[in-house]
Amino acid sequence: MASNLLKGKKGLIFGALNERSIAWKVAKRAVAEGAEIVLTNTAVSIRMGTIDELAKKCNTIVIPADATNVADLEQLIDRTMEHFGGRFDFMLHSIGMSPNVRKGRTYDDLDYDYLAKTLDVSAISFHKAIQTVRRKDALNEWGSIVALSYIAAQRTLYGYNDMADAKALLESIARSFGYIYGREKHVRINTVSQSPTPTTAGEGVLGMADLMEFAESMSPLGNATAEDCADYVLTLFSDYTRKVTMQNLYHDGGFSSMGMSRRAMRTYEKGLRFEDVHQNQYLTDEK
Amino acid sequence: MASNLLKGKKGLIFGALNERSIAWKVAKRAVAEGAEIVLTNTAVSIRMGTIDELAKKCNTIVIPADATNVADLEQLIDRTMEHFGGRFDFMLHSIGMSPNVRKGRTYDDLDYDYLAKTLDVSAISFHKAIQTVRRKDALNEWGSIVALSYIAAQRTLYGYNDMADAKALLESIARSFGYIYGREKHVRINTVSQSPTPTTAGEGVLGMADLMEFAESMSPLGNATAEDCADYVLTLFSDYTRKVTMQNLYHDGGFSSMGMSRRAMRTYEKGLRFEDVHQNQYLTDEK
Amino acid sequence: MASNLLKGKKGLIFGALNERSIAWKVAKRAVAEGAEIVLTNTAVSIRMGTIDELAKKCNTIVIPADATNVADLEQLIDRTMEHFGGRFDFMLHSIGMSPNVRKGRTYDDLDYDYLAKTLDVSAISFHKAIQTVRRKDALNEWGSIVALSYIAAQRTLYGYNDMADAKALLESIARSFGYIYGREKHVRINTVSQSPTPTTAGEGVLGMADLMEFAESMSPLGNATAEDCADYVLTLFSDYTRKVTMQNLYHDGGFSSMGMSRRAMRTYEKGLRFEDVHQNQYLTDEK
Amino acid sequence: MASNLLKGKKGLIFGALNERSIAWKVAKRAVAEGAEIVLTNTAVSIRMGTIDELAKKCNTIVIPADATNVADLEQLIDRTMEHFGGRFDFMLHSIGMSPNVRKGRTYDDLDYDYLAKTLDVSAISFHKAIQTVRRKDALNEWGSIVALSYIAAQRTLYGYNDMADAKALLESIARSFGYIYGREKHVRINTVSQSPTPTTAGEGVLGMADLMEFAESMSPLGNATAEDCADYVLTLFSDYTRKVTMQNLYHDGGFSSMGMSRRAMRTYEKGLRFEDVHQNQYLTDEK
Repeated sequence: MASNLLKGKKGLIFGALNERSIAWKVAKRAVAEGAEIVLTNTAVSIRMGTIDELAKKCNTIVIPADATNVADLEQLIDRTMEHFGGRFDFMLHSIGMSPNVRKGRTYDDLDYDYLAKTLDVSAISFHKAIQTVRRKDALNEWGSIVALSYIAAQRTLYGYNDMADAKALLESIARSFGYIYGREKHVRINTVSQSPTPTTAGEGVLGMADLMEFAESMSPLGNATAEDCADYVLTLFSDYTRKVTMQNLYHDGGFSSMGMSRRAMRTYEKGLRFEDVHQNQYLTDEK
Repeated sequence: MASNLLKGKKGLIFGALNERSIAWKVAKRAVAEGAEIVLTNTAVSIRMGTIDELAKKCNTIVIPADATNVADLEQLIDRTMEHFGGRFDFMLHSIGMSPNVRKGRTYDDLDYDYLAKTLDVSAISFHKAIQTVRRKDALNEWGSIVALSYIAAQRTLYGYNDMADAKALLESIARSFGYIYGREKHVRINTVSQSPTPTTAGEGVLGMADLMEFAESMSPLGNATAEDCADYVLTLFSDYTRKVTMQNLYHDGGFSSMGMSRRAMRTYEKGLRFEDVHQNQYLTDEK
Repeated sequence: MASNLLKGKKGLIFGALNERSIAWKVAKRAVAEGAEIVLTNTAVSIRMGTIDELAKKCNTIVIPADATNVADLEQLIDRTMEHFGGRFDFMLHSIGMSPNVRKGRTYDDLDYDYLAKTLDVSAISFHKAIQTVRRKDALNEWGSIVALSYIAAQRTLYGYNDMADAKALLESIARSFGYIYGREKHVRINTVSQSPTPTTAGEGVLGMADLMEFAESMSPLGNATAEDCADYVLTLFSDYTRKVTMQNLYHDGGFSSMGMSRRAMRTYEKGLRFEDVHQNQYLTDEK
Repeated sequence: MASNLLKGKKGLIFGALNERSIAWKVAKRAVAEGAEIVLTNTAVSIRMGTIDELAKKCNTIVIPADATNVADLEQLIDRTMEHFGGRFDFMLHSIGMSPNVRKGRTYDDLDYDYLAKTLDVSAISFHKAIQTVRRKDALNEWGSIVALSYIAAQRTLYGYNDMADAKALLESIARSFGYIYGREKHVRINTVSQSPTPTTAGEGVLGMADLMEFAESMSPLGNATAEDCADYVLTLFSDYTRKVTMQNLYHDGGFSSMGMSRRAMRTYEKGLRFEDVHQNQYLTDEK
């Protein structure tokens, strides 16, 4: 599938680590659809991952920047505009990290310095990136900004911890800034609430594999993959969606609108019977 | 618990069938909190159920009326006002029925006459009751109207069938009429989105028992019972909630804000392992 | 803009009346993006409007059908499949009409036969069309169905009357059927909640022109036009959005996420001052 | 109105400054309904305001504490339990402040240290208070926690600035912690999304008076006052609402469910005509 959907568009992509990253897929697909891109990530992530390989495939550069550091962002935007020879059209924010999750601090035992870090990396960095881009008037009229979110912003999933709060903040920033950037420059800002996806970032979350299976089972179309997500994000960068803004868009195979599917219920019912069997054994053993 | 929350209030209650009915509990609790009430149901339901017994306990009358029939409603309101000697203060709509569910017609094979009946009984009857009450100026200023709903209006639960659509329509009617009745007479109209509850009406829904167990397991406070619901509805009839209107209020132990609980996930995971075991056996048997 | 977004796709479009219709724009743009289409509308609408002209431009046929009549729909689907030589890929439902609005019956004075008609034409017809298409297995795997909705389904706008309830029902049908058609054939079903649009259908709504100005003023990107809507709908028919289902997607320049814009507030404030002036005059005149 | 709704209950109330504060009204009404309370605020607020007067009326003490400081909170909870002679039943969080708003930094020019402060004071303090209370096992089973929020968490209102993001974070914390505290101790946690209210805290927000007039005009029941809010919060502290948790509850006279009211539209239309007149004059003046 390639329709030149982004022909002539230029964009900046935050957060590609390795080939499992959603940002990686977006980058590749954007280029395949006619866009030019610039990649960025932190110096640490650049070393840890394989983003240089992606840059080669996409015929572009990687500019190191810490998205929580305004000075870094200013330099990043300057160099991006230099690379493109002027303004650009789209920006992807695919950044999230919780030290509380990493260090095993549960939600009822949060470390508040860690929480500040979670919010800064996963949500406030989005505000910083937009504020910097706007100050430098770096986006063309009718440009498009997307950040990746998750349904934990609306509904609690055990183990997702303070990332849920970070995603709620992220989505609020999209709305708040979407109003201002929209009325001024017709730049739209949306979040995509993606199915749980087997990226490196997702691995830290407790019980991720089973959660993904549950989501798969609940969603009539199954979980949206990273590839699916890339395709969807492209439509939001294209000129076909110029009046969509300040939205949180579920890209999840229908999960968000499900209360209970027949398929998930069947597995659940087996679990119930399994429990009964197990309990009966236990009672027998008790004797 | 009895605080005279409804001292001096008068109300009309639709939909009590037997002692399992939510409307039954609301009636009893309302009277215990100082209210006077009138009961109504269809002639068939009056015969099938035990509402006369409830009337005796509540020291009141039962007026038969088909809530889909405007002439019946007009007569009902006249007789209710006669009974009370004037206007009253609150009204409960607890009515729902789907011939498609009863006759086993699945959602991809709906009978459209049945669907019209589902919508008329479960949702449009609410409009008819309000329109009649308003025409007769039967409610006091700052009166309160409540209808019972279910989360199927927002999220699809397999087997809930066209009742989901009926509940969506019901909730919309609450908003649409809430605006008009609010600006004119300060009457508020809300829906309460209740946990799955083991009433006679609920029995027809496919897989209800397991669904209730799942909801129980997902909800941090467990499912709200019919008794809990009655207490909550009383607050909405009381003067403590006079500025709450046009809302759909979840009364569900937290279910609506959950994506996945640890407890439900454990049962689900057992189901997954049970499936694996079963499939292995099957493969062995295949040989 | 033309990217061959719908190359090789075939679709059926309900509801084009004349060149102001959203369905008309979708038809033209779909063809420009490489799709083949079939048009349908009621016999009356075909006579009243200019759909034959559209058919000529799109190099296709018009099949008359009343979307509330299952026999008509069956014949329509048969003839559409005949025309295409097999299954097709997408379907647009852009149908809405309220006899209560037309006849000036306000929401507190609804005629219930009219209400039944409003719901049948504007919402249940969507179920009928999907049920018929599914029975005849007329859609390809990963097909896409879209219906047009309006924010009145969530928030009350004075004068929008029973069309608000119809839209709430329509959106619920999209969810309910989206689950079933998704799990079986990966067909996705969504509604697009469009800005108020100056179509012939919209003209009947009370105070439409001023409402459109208010929405324009509130929306950071301004109202989405019928042309904008067509572009957006194309993305939902394309293969770029295959995992989006059971959603109500706001296409409204940001209106749905606004509480109050500076621009709308300035107009409102002028109205407040104008009222003061006027009231002062009035008081003077009173003397 | 006094029904002994909170007879025998004990609670801790954050954020009463002076008699205009919502927390002040809640405190007075809670005591009138049979509760014992403890008051707390920062040392600065205690000096600036008149909370000592309130304490006298409520026959209780004021314990100074900075809700962003965990050590302060620990001491506060210890002293509160000492005062009550054991556990208590409810807690109100009514705290919000944005240095960005105070210093006139607009949302596209945020100071990020100020933003961190906004989030810490207005949202994270809620997590800190709950985490401290839970660690000390200070709440009785079936206790109730409420924080005050505003619709800016869902819809952008110009001038509300980073407080919108803080409220989104606050509401997310209520959900996230509501799950944990609910499953463990049946403690429920909700936010009340209140009409704009003329408190001292609200004064800083740009254009507050006009915004309140608009909200009044849009809401069928008019804006909810601080007194109304107190009554509503009492129901959430009472035993009548024990299964309501993880909810954001609109207490706003219907505002949140309105798209446009007739009354607000009339003022808006006058503003449009006023603009026309004004523009014509201006054109004349131009000559």
